[in-house]
Amino acid sequence: MYTVSVRDHFMIAHSFRGETFGPAQKLHGATYVVDVAFVRPELDADGVVVDIGKASDTVKSILGALNFKNLDEVPEFAGRNTTTEFLAREIFDRTAAAIGRGELGENARGITLVRVTLHESHVAWASFEGAPGAASARR
Amino acid sequence: MYTVSVRDHFMIAHSFRGETFGPAQKLHGATYVVDVAFVRPELDADGVVVDIGKASDTVKSILGALNFKNLDEVPEFAGRNTTTEFLAREIFDRTAAAIGRGELGENARGITLVRVTLHESHVAWASFEGAPGAASARR
Amino acid sequence: MYTVSVRDHFMIAHSFRGETFGPAQKLHGATYVVDVAFVRPELDADGVVVDIGKASDTVKSILGALNFKNLDEVPEFAGRNTTTEFLAREIFDRTAAAIGRGELGENARGITLVRVTLHESHVAWASFEGAPGAASARR
Amino acid sequence: MYTVSVRDHFMIAHSFRGETFGPAQKLHGATYVVDVAFVRPELDADGVVVDIGKASDTVKSILGALNFKNLDEVPEFAGRNTTTEFLAREIFDRTAAAIGRGELGENARGITLVRVTLHESHVAWASFEGAPGAASARR
Amino acid sequence: MYTVSVRDHFMIAHSFRGETFGPAQKLHGATYVVDVAFVRPELDADGVVVDIGKASDTVKSILGALNFKNLDEVPEFAGRNTTTEFLAREIFDRTAAAIGRGELGENARGITLVRVTLHESHVAWASFEGAPGAASARR
Amino acid sequence: MYTVSVRDHFMIAHSFRGETFGPAQKLHGATYVVDVAFVRPELDADGVVVDIGKASDTVKSILGALNFKNLDEVPEFAGRNTTTEFLAREIFDRTAAAIGRGELGENARGITLVRVTLHESHVAWASFEGAPGAASARR
Repeated sequence: MYTVSVRDHFMIAHSFRGETFGPAQKLHGATYVVDVAFVRPELDADGVVVDIGKASDTVKSILGALNFKNLDEVPEFAGRNTTTEFLAREIFDRTAAAIGRGELGENARGITLVRVTLHESHVAWASFEGAPGAASARR
Repeated sequence: MYTVSVRDHFMIAHSFRGETFGPAQKLHGATYVVDVAFVRPELDADGVVVDIGKASDTVKSILGALNFKNLDEVPEFAGRNTTTEFLAREIFDRTAAAIGRGELGENARGITLVRVTLHESHVAWASFEGAPGAASARR
Repeated sequence: MYTVSVRDHFMIAHSFRGETFGPAQKLHGATYVVDVAFVRPELDADGVVVDIGKASDTVKSILGALNFKNLDEVPEFAGRNTTTEFLAREIFDRTAAAIGRGELGENARGITLVRVTLHESHVAWASFEGAPGAASARR
Repeated sequence: MYTVSVRDHFMIAHSFRGETFGPAQKLHGATYVVDVAFVRPELDADGVVVDIGKASDTVKSILGALNFKNLDEVPEFAGRNTTTEFLAREIFDRTAAAIGRGELGENARGITLVRVTLHESHVAWASFEGAPGAASARR
Repeated sequence: MYTVSVRDHFMIAHSFRGETFGPAQKLHGATYVVDVAFVRPELDADGVVVDIGKASDTVKSILGALNFKNLDEVPEFAGRNTTTEFLAREIFDRTAAAIGRGELGENARGITLVRVTLHESHVAWASFEGAPGAASARR
Repeated sequence: MYTVSVRDHFMIAHSFRGETFGPAQKLHGATYVVDVAFVRPELDADGVVVDIGKASDTVKSILGALNFKNLDEVPEFAGRNTTTEFLAREIFDRTAAAIGRGELGENARGITLVRVTLHESHVAWASFEGAPGAASARR
């Protein structure tokens, strides 16, 4: 099984609802350093998992759409707690959809698993992983 | 599949028995930087894998019970080589037991896998992973 | 010359004013991983630069006063751009004041330089360094 | 499931063929920081996954055979793009073969999975993982 | 004293002449992860050391001119050993010249020190630091 | 000003005397990841700060003399608290002496500053820096 991972980051403001979040119920923010891993059982005809240039550009574009935002005011997140776990899933879904639309190249359809990890500090991080096909179909 | 990880550390002395350990048979020590990962297929009602405050406190408490100790003198490790692998398993077992006792919250019972990684230097680390339920039942 | 450094972090929301800041003029946020370095020419009577427990507690307390805040609403920052550089200086000033008040122990008065570094992502960080005495006197 | 990982590095020159590689079609180079993970369900009689001294020596020897080379001139790579993914697999195969030859000790035959990760920069890395037995038999 | 640092990377091939370099006399290569630090005693009118967007773009442009090259074939390096130290100085000189040409903004003329660090692996790095004005004048 | 740094590590047991050390008064241990930086104003005739092979070997040898030891039983440390700061100075002194004996090559006599940093965990580190000549003469 082969994996290729790329790293980028984005910076947002948000707040959480629910006692379990304690002081994080107040408006605060985070830098998320994001690793997106692409997994497949065999390499494509070019001998790669994915065109790393296209992969980096796609991740940059997906994170760019969230960067420098107050997530409390993003309509599609209305009523949701934008926890690190939730955002990992959201970025997974957007990456899977990009694969489905062919933005990472036709060969990228051979990718069987995508794992998105968000580092919120030097002592905490979260990830979501799944098959991109199912997520892509759902959108 | 969702994962949340937290990091902390502890510092101990110990020695190993067996020729395979070479100079590590002498009393020496280590800083272990510990990552504990909590894994589950779906988020709980709060939209998280685990209450990260409770998770961090539990890990700090488990590591605190080992911190600043000479493991050669800890009765429950008598006759055992406290290798990095062994300690990863030990911390896994204690984390699983804490989940079983409800210390990470009732929702934490949805956790299906725990992975404990101990970094002993910038060039070596070890981990143990398993289902917390089985380990919890065993204790 | 001896140096001891400790690391902690805080998470805030803020926005900047001025065209030079581009999209960062919008409300967003950051995780700052903070390193505070204490420097002195000779060790104290205990053979240390500073009591590392007191140093860690002081840094945690200083960062705790900023953690989970929207810096745009903090009265003492009114009219200021809370850039990474600015915050490094602010935390330096607060650390210097704590040394001046004796919170890091009497021996900590031998510290001749404090350096505060804020990592805002894996690709950008900023620091401020200076003599704590002058800063302490100014407050 | 237990895992032990060791880290080392090597530095090579190479070039790629195929439009997909853009400017990397020119002769350039890379430092690869390599993590080799050894995985098994139970510890051996010494309480370890693998003799970490033997594991480190084996990895150093395998990387040493590639270090300071122009991979374009290595006969066994003729006609191949020595991508990060390809090299991860190559180092996996050589590690699996070393296990098969007993170089990591007889106990190392209990290893059920080997994962080789090559970090090519602070923002990109690739890995290959598989059962060492199959790879060993193939050589 | 304030410092702002940005990180980027480049990947090159090269060889060294001289017995002291041992196997590095053969054509090989390296990934250099580069940190460029900008230092000044007081912040500019915007409350920053340097416009971090301009700083990042300048560093990317300087590294881009070296990226994916065989440094043995770069005319201006003819007859020189392109050691990590040498390259740190070269990138320093180019950064200083960019400041001198005003590419980092007029305010950047207040920068009194630039430090360039090249990480060649997880266990080795080198840097050059100096006043940008002198270097800028020399070009 | 040029700097070259190399990294290695050692693992020891020790205990501290004095109330200020709290639980660290008990026998415990640490992994120290050690960075040794060599600084000089101009490169030598080979275009380097120091022969990095010799530098790495010297550091490995110095750390090897401490590795896998209980520092409480090392005669030359009798009556001393082997704090991270103290050990940074000790390794500095030994490195300076090695330079003085010519073990890093004749050219290494041009080194004007040596900085030794010991990382004891992901959240704490200490360093000592000074001119190697004075330290070398003192031994």
